[in-house]
Amino acid sequence: MSYKAPLRDIAFVLHELFDIESHYRNILGNNAPDKDLVSAIIEECARFCEEQLAPLNAVGDREGCRLEGESVVTPSGFKQAYQNYKDNGWPALSGPIEFGGQGLPDSLRYITTEMTISANHAWSNYPGLTGGAITTLLRHGDSRRKAQFLPKMISGDWSGTMCLTEPQCGSDLGLIRTSAIHDDESDDSRCYLITGAKLFISSGEHDLTENIVHIVLARIAGAPKGTKGLSLFLVPKYLVDENGGIGRRNRLSCGAVESKMGLHGNATCAMNFDGAVGYLIGDANSGLQAMFSYINESRLGVALHGHCHTEVSYQNAREYAKQRLQMKAAHRTDSASARDADPIIQHPDVRRMLMTQKAFAEGGRMLNYFCTLQIDKSQSQHLDETAKEEAEKLLAVLTPIAKGFLSEVSLETTNYGIQVFGGHGYIADNGQEQEFRDARITTIYEGTTAIQGLDLLGRKIFSTNGAILQPLQRRIGQFIAANANNNYAEMLEEHVREWNALTRWIGAASARDADEVNAAAVEYILYSGYVVLAYFWAQAAVIADRQLTGVADDDAFYRAKKITCDFYFRRLMPRTLTLAAAIKSGASALMVLSESDF
Amino acid sequence: MSYKAPLRDIAFVLHELFDIESHYRNILGNNAPDKDLVSAIIEECARFCEEQLAPLNAVGDREGCRLEGESVVTPSGFKQAYQNYKDNGWPALSGPIEFGGQGLPDSLRYITTEMTISANHAWSNYPGLTGGAITTLLRHGDSRRKAQFLPKMISGDWSGTMCLTEPQCGSDLGLIRTSAIHDDESDDSRCYLITGAKLFISSGEHDLTENIVHIVLARIAGAPKGTKGLSLFLVPKYLVDENGGIGRRNRLSCGAVESKMGLHGNATCAMNFDGAVGYLIGDANSGLQAMFSYINESRLGVALHGHCHTEVSYQNAREYAKQRLQMKAAHRTDSASARDADPIIQHPDVRRMLMTQKAFAEGGRMLNYFCTLQIDKSQSQHLDETAKEEAEKLLAVLTPIAKGFLSEVSLETTNYGIQVFGGHGYIADNGQEQEFRDARITTIYEGTTAIQGLDLLGRKIFSTNGAILQPLQRRIGQFIAANANNNYAEMLEEHVREWNALTRWIGAASARDADEVNAAAVEYILYSGYVVLAYFWAQAAVIADRQLTGVADDDAFYRAKKITCDFYFRRLMPRTLTLAAAIKSGASALMVLSESDF
Repeated sequence: MSYKAPLRDIAFVLHELFDIESHYRNILGNNAPDKDLVSAIIEECARFCEEQLAPLNAVGDREGCRLEGESVVTPSGFKQAYQNYKDNGWPALSGPIEFGGQGLPDSLRYITTEMTISANHAWSNYPGLTGGAITTLLRHGDSRRKAQFLPKMISGDWSGTMCLTEPQCGSDLGLIRTSAIHDDESDDSRCYLITGAKLFISSGEHDLTENIVHIVLARIAGAPKGTKGLSLFLVPKYLVDENGGIGRRNRLSCGAVESKMGLHGNATCAMNFDGAVGYLIGDANSGLQAMFSYINESRLGVALHGHCHTEVSYQNAREYAKQRLQMKAAHRTDSASARDADPIIQHPDVRRMLMTQKAFAEGGRMLNYFCTLQIDKSQSQHLDETAKEEAEKLLAVLTPIAKGFLSEVSLETTNYGIQVFGGHGYIADNGQEQEFRDARITTIYEGTTAIQGLDLLGRKIFSTNGAILQPLQRRIGQFIAANANNNYAEMLEEHVREWNALTRWIGAASARDADEVNAAAVEYILYSGYVVLAYFWAQAAVIADRQLTGVADDDAFYRAKKITCDFYFRRLMPRTLTLAAAIKSGASALMVLSESDF
Repeated sequence: MSYKAPLRDIAFVLHELFDIESHYRNILGNNAPDKDLVSAIIEECARFCEEQLAPLNAVGDREGCRLEGESVVTPSGFKQAYQNYKDNGWPALSGPIEFGGQGLPDSLRYITTEMTISANHAWSNYPGLTGGAITTLLRHGDSRRKAQFLPKMISGDWSGTMCLTEPQCGSDLGLIRTSAIHDDESDDSRCYLITGAKLFISSGEHDLTENIVHIVLARIAGAPKGTKGLSLFLVPKYLVDENGGIGRRNRLSCGAVESKMGLHGNATCAMNFDGAVGYLIGDANSGLQAMFSYINESRLGVALHGHCHTEVSYQNAREYAKQRLQMKAAHRTDSASARDADPIIQHPDVRRMLMTQKAFAEGGRMLNYFCTLQIDKSQSQHLDETAKEEAEKLLAVLTPIAKGFLSEVSLETTNYGIQVFGGHGYIADNGQEQEFRDARITTIYEGTTAIQGLDLLGRKIFSTNGAILQPLQRRIGQFIAANANNNYAEMLEEHVREWNALTRWIGAASARDADEVNAAAVEYILYSGYVVLAYFWAQAAVIADRQLTGVADDDAFYRAKKITCDFYFRRLMPRTLTLAAAIKSGASALMVLSESDF
């Protein structure tokens, strides 16, 4: 599989859809990067990803990671690529200047991360996890730990992980058993000894960095049961010595590297904490709340993962479909008459798959970038509280939608990637099947799709009586009002109406039967995703319409945008028919069969 | 993954839905096996599959096949299991008595094959391919080749393959280049020398049998271009000596074993024919027609593959969901109050996935068995031509539907198998991810889902002006008429009406634009599949209603049938809404973007 960063489409979303220069001036004032700097960063990152990371993607799948003693050996080339990545300053891009970062907006980190994931998801999960650990520490850490750890993490010398899952607990964090007792030998009231087994820890152990900083959810001895008794700890692989360097080895180790369906190049570790020194982050028993900084960031990361697999699968399917000759097209061009068969891109069913991939690839980009702009805003010191609150609400609503929808979509699109290749798609060397296997984790990790639905409906919409939806719906309403005679805006309006009706239906139904929220969770996330993407596609079509200039090269791009928007509304939006009907079929159809009769 | 043959459900379909004893008397007269014999065969096969094949399923995935010189080594245990299978007479079950077979109905072979595939798809593809080769030879071979090859193939001493695909041709068999020239050194007018490269040959080379009989599509020198110039040849790995034993090695060899996404235990071979001796089967230039005996049988085989992956994924997901404790259920039973979490089968979204798997597993069985009964009928010497013709029409329509629908469905269900297991589903040792990987080929091999749609719409329905649909629709109509006040029969009637309207819509649209058939192909197959399964589910519910006796054990089974039928109609049938809308969105939404603008 090859990867070519879709610079034209990235530029469309950044500059034409979102006017990123104005956005950066709003959130950063005079320190805002200008268009040239943004473009230079993106192009430089694209080159690094295409040339250095993409060629290692198949290598990582083939070689996997192996445990040697207490060390994990990553695939050939991963370490050197990480070294180059670090030497070029990429990890520090959006870190605060006071800790050695470059102070650029978070959104730029996400946009460059889109490229590293697309080129090599497995590799990208090593630096990727560090970002969330930094955010958690920045928001909830005390000044001593910040000073000790942040500079090394922001420079990329040290990496990070999140340790939540245990053998007996995945979605249900209340079941966490890992324990923390205060370290009486330490004069630091925040110093604890952590003991327990953590499972499925991505990048838990590896050879890319000299230290690994684990962010661990554990239960302080005597704490309440359930999630209210969880506390968050920073537990480094090596303690920090008095000079800020690598000190003694902490009492933790990787017990196993999992053999899994895909993402072989990323080490998924079973981690054992055996009285390891850990430092309390935030308040005792407020760990889950603090962890949510990390979880939310990771969920947006997974939305990127899903989107990236769609993009890469599409790119390669498209090129194959242009070259592979098979069957004659129904409408042959004159130049084809001498051929025994035509490129399969001329066959409608292959088109159906490619257009679906394209609509989701470009649509997913619009949704993800919009989310990252809200992160910028929510962190800005130049915006007032109202603007920040609005950004936070948008983010609260769109994070589970982007995570749930784009991950589910990636399973469909990467499946199409295989299908377009036919039998060749099933062959390892052609790479499409790796895209599916690597994508397959995205509907699971950082919370399954159902968990995203419960988060959106339960924790967010119903607990605010729908108020949290207002900023998004206001924006969509403004777009519809501003485009009164636009066909897509009209269809969008109908779907928003149905979306609201479904939300109310679930709310009313769940008052009668608490199972209704869980029964509707996945279909509700998907319905929401189709509406939100429709909002972005409709905007893209309006812009494209405006930009058609008569200049041939540009016009081809804008024409394709309009056509893809039309395809999205005509061929994909009808999926909401089934989703709505499935939701309204209700929980009873699922629950009436008694457990023992299965 | 474990496998337990679902004997109760098999018995329900055979005896309660289809009255298999009467069926066998109709097609075989006095030679019909009775209920006891049928049950004994099924139970014996179940034991073999559960005990000997299922434990080798993960072994095959882990070890794969390797090429050593010109030989392929299959995974540990595969050879011994095949030997036991042969020693127990399974390959000969439905072979004609005159060639050493046991003369039992073909349907019994399919039903036992359901179990071998469920237990071990990769292993099952070695004997599985032989069945189609035998059928082809029986129908189209001359008496000399039949006498030479059939006894050894029916006994299982020799196995078979089908060789269609070449590097430049998959779906488009007209592009085949493998050549045949008459062997002038032979006095046999049917003796040719075959030269060419064949790709993706399942079981093309292996160590389970002493000889391998390849059925090869090739082009006789000077034959017309396209499919009309294809002829069929029998090309054995070893020629047969004058005593009927193994003679000299033929000039053909396996050049490579593909490394692929799944089905590692089955050798997918690149085969080179270098002037290999081959015997013409049937008439010159009529090869494709003769090959269709094999292709149709193989397609029903793939319908079984799809169904089996659904069954096994469901079985294991169900057991896991009963044991895995995570989150408290909305409606807790009294006995649960001491638990911190409940079995995940109590959560509606997990139910949604399990019920979907169950509805497709049991529905797929009804559809597949119905197809095999039509094979029995079409081959029967006790039925008149009208009855046989009806069976052939049912088979012609239902084969692409069963193949296309049940294979597509298996990708959804095996995905759910992973999802129910959560992170554990992504781990190789838990087996669910293997089910997906092994299932993934089913929408591709023996013709992609789009090809099934083209076959059904183009080659069958439109070319007969819909007449080929009549036997199926008459049966459905009779069921509806006989169950006038039945809710499911009413819903079925509505969907049949829409199905017919869609067929007419596509017909009319394709008269204006030839692309419309291809544009609708996949959704039309899926729509057809949902209607056909609805027909079987509605029948199952009627029977279950009648059988509810008040005997507790049996009642649980029949209650579950009724509930699953209800689930099917309420939660799954609404998928037809989207399929119908997608079809009617038409080809233009797919085709308007010019190739260069992608």
